[in-house]
Amino acid sequence: MTASFYPPQRTLMGPGPSDVSPRVLSAMARPTIGHLDPLFVAMMDEVKQLLQYAFQTKNTLTIPVSAPGSAGMETCFVNLIEAGDTVIVCQNGVFGLRMQENVERCGAKAVLVQDEWGRACDPQKLEDALKANPDARFVAFVHAETSTGASTDVKAMCEVAHRYDCLTIVDAVTSLGGSPLDVDDWDVDAVYSGTQKCLSCTPGLSPISFNEVALDVIKHRKTKVQSWFLDLNLVMAYWGEGAKRAYHHTAPVNALYALHESLLILKEEGLEQAWARHQTHHQALKAGLESLGLNFVVPESERLPQLNAVRIPDGVNDAQVRAMLLQDYQLEIGAGLGVMAGKVWRIGLMGYACRKDNVLTCVLALSEVLGRLHIPFAHKDVMAATLAAYGE
Amino acid sequence: MTASFYPPQRTLMGPGPSDVSPRVLSAMARPTIGHLDPLFVAMMDEVKQLLQYAFQTKNTLTIPVSAPGSAGMETCFVNLIEAGDTVIVCQNGVFGLRMQENVERCGAKAVLVQDEWGRACDPQKLEDALKANPDARFVAFVHAETSTGASTDVKAMCEVAHRYDCLTIVDAVTSLGGSPLDVDDWDVDAVYSGTQKCLSCTPGLSPISFNEVALDVIKHRKTKVQSWFLDLNLVMAYWGEGAKRAYHHTAPVNALYALHESLLILKEEGLEQAWARHQTHHQALKAGLESLGLNFVVPESERLPQLNAVRIPDGVNDAQVRAMLLQDYQLEIGAGLGVMAGKVWRIGLMGYACRKDNVLTCVLALSEVLGRLHIPFAHKDVMAATLAAYGE
Repeated sequence: MTASFYPPQRTLMGPGPSDVSPRVLSAMARPTIGHLDPLFVAMMDEVKQLLQYAFQTKNTLTIPVSAPGSAGMETCFVNLIEAGDTVIVCQNGVFGLRMQENVERCGAKAVLVQDEWGRACDPQKLEDALKANPDARFVAFVHAETSTGASTDVKAMCEVAHRYDCLTIVDAVTSLGGSPLDVDDWDVDAVYSGTQKCLSCTPGLSPISFNEVALDVIKHRKTKVQSWFLDLNLVMAYWGEGAKRAYHHTAPVNALYALHESLLILKEEGLEQAWARHQTHHQALKAGLESLGLNFVVPESERLPQLNAVRIPDGVNDAQVRAMLLQDYQLEIGAGLGVMAGKVWRIGLMGYACRKDNVLTCVLALSEVLGRLHIPFAHKDVMAATLAAYGE
Repeated sequence: MTASFYPPQRTLMGPGPSDVSPRVLSAMARPTIGHLDPLFVAMMDEVKQLLQYAFQTKNTLTIPVSAPGSAGMETCFVNLIEAGDTVIVCQNGVFGLRMQENVERCGAKAVLVQDEWGRACDPQKLEDALKANPDARFVAFVHAETSTGASTDVKAMCEVAHRYDCLTIVDAVTSLGGSPLDVDDWDVDAVYSGTQKCLSCTPGLSPISFNEVALDVIKHRKTKVQSWFLDLNLVMAYWGEGAKRAYHHTAPVNALYALHESLLILKEEGLEQAWARHQTHHQALKAGLESLGLNFVVPESERLPQLNAVRIPDGVNDAQVRAMLLQDYQLEIGAGLGVMAGKVWRIGLMGYACRKDNVLTCVLALSEVLGRLHIPFAHKDVMAATLAAYGE
């Protein structure tokens, strides 16, 4: 007989979802009101303003798509790209591969610029590709590769792309709220993110932002957007300016309460303070993991603080360690993705989960489990190393 | 300064979202766990089984799409239809128009079969269209037209479609859980619904079900599905059988807790009992509304119990009445949609909101507001008429 589902209280230190603040969960459980209710419409306006702050943009078209990050990605591609377009896709992990899928399903041509998994995208390689493909109209790349933990220099990439008259589409799913992202200053044309990473909101929504140049492309398309649900010409009639909203689809009302609260928490803390907090705890986690003999996948200068991919030592059973952490410590860390499956662990430090108690629990639990499994790499000075990084 | 958002406690008697049960809101606020967590995967299996019960089907591919009903509609069309296909689209309201949009954005040809808004789709007209279009491969229509409150005979329509070797795509957004729907017995090939109508769950998910014939079409497509996010070949790797799940997108974890609880509530009550309850309260609401002199848009034999569209009397300011109900009674009723905007009110009786107290409040509040506005149609025996329908 099926009964109500009561999930355990996990500590979520995987690649997302991250731990959700009790404030956000509480907001989500408030009474549902109509998606055209004047009070709800006023809250939508606040969500847009708070998202503009999080993205550091004045873009009018800054809204959450009513579906997870993958749908935000698809929103960018299907609205901007038409069949026959040429798009440069920079690939340094799983999400660059997904961008290619999106381009091709729009009937467009994807020119691939490949960097090693675990490294940033290289602006020089992008420039070479742009020189070789003068018909390219768009450049797409991932700011924070969730599959490896590599951070790409968005400003440098956009500067190159614009020199060749291309618009940029940037994946900021894992960066938003966790490491510096400045959509206007970096001149990003279209960007998408997710709610379940450094915003520490529940999964299910995808914030996007388009600048005027990108908006102009959408308004002057030769063909209809292939997705009715994601067609921004229609979505904007609901999320647009003023009190008058045209029904497009029924907004996920309670999920938007949650996003509102999570963005408010980010604003209260301050973006710079949130970025600094992710950096601080990353340094401590790094000290702890390295004291265990674990090596990072990404070189230090290209590393994200919020997604720590470390190589699994030889002879260790990946699934066994993760299962022990989950069962004995209620601690979730992430498995490797794509070619890195079985080879790395991805330890997230995102949003509400990015805290000292979680860092200490994680390194201590990993140390204990590796010790219990007689892994020779496990050292004993893990706590001293971690606390030292906190200056203690 | 932006502050936390505290919505009022409305009574939602519009076309959806409907009032959400406190049990469902409470489930939604439980701690987020990972979307690949074994406990979450086990809960997903229960959601699938509960959805099979709600749809009355044994279809293996019975899952919730991670986005609202419009995305469920799009899932059906983009997975089944390929460019060049011919699709018969029966239109008797807004959602039939939307189906046409979906067909055309797939590069397919939509042959329209039109019925008057407020009437059911006519199986004879469908048969005429099928005779005239022997190349048609699919027939699409809406079971419960949310824009008018008309109910179409799904079994009869499917029988005709199958006689001409067409697959059926059925919109059951407003019917699921509110009025009889039997996917297997009626031989529906593909069906989609929403969570925010008679399931009384929060908006944001779209349950779908495909039978083996439809699944076979998906598996033998000549071209890739144009949407990566909605491609069921990929989605099934996450929602598929067994404990092994491949990451596709991050599932909206907390929204799925809510859906699980709402489906459990439906199962506890029993489908037939839920259908009977909607019918009982519809009869009382009907008695009350008619005693006020309000006329239904849909003839009695084609009327849905859960969506009551009544004509707005001449001289009444639609927006003013709805604003008064909202402000003075916290009661939301729905406006007209499309060609019916300003001409009808849509009064929902869906799921948790389908209760005697709501019926009485609604007819009493409407009576008082119409009286306050000196509308000559307002009668005084509204309560007696409504209670009489309850046998009191």
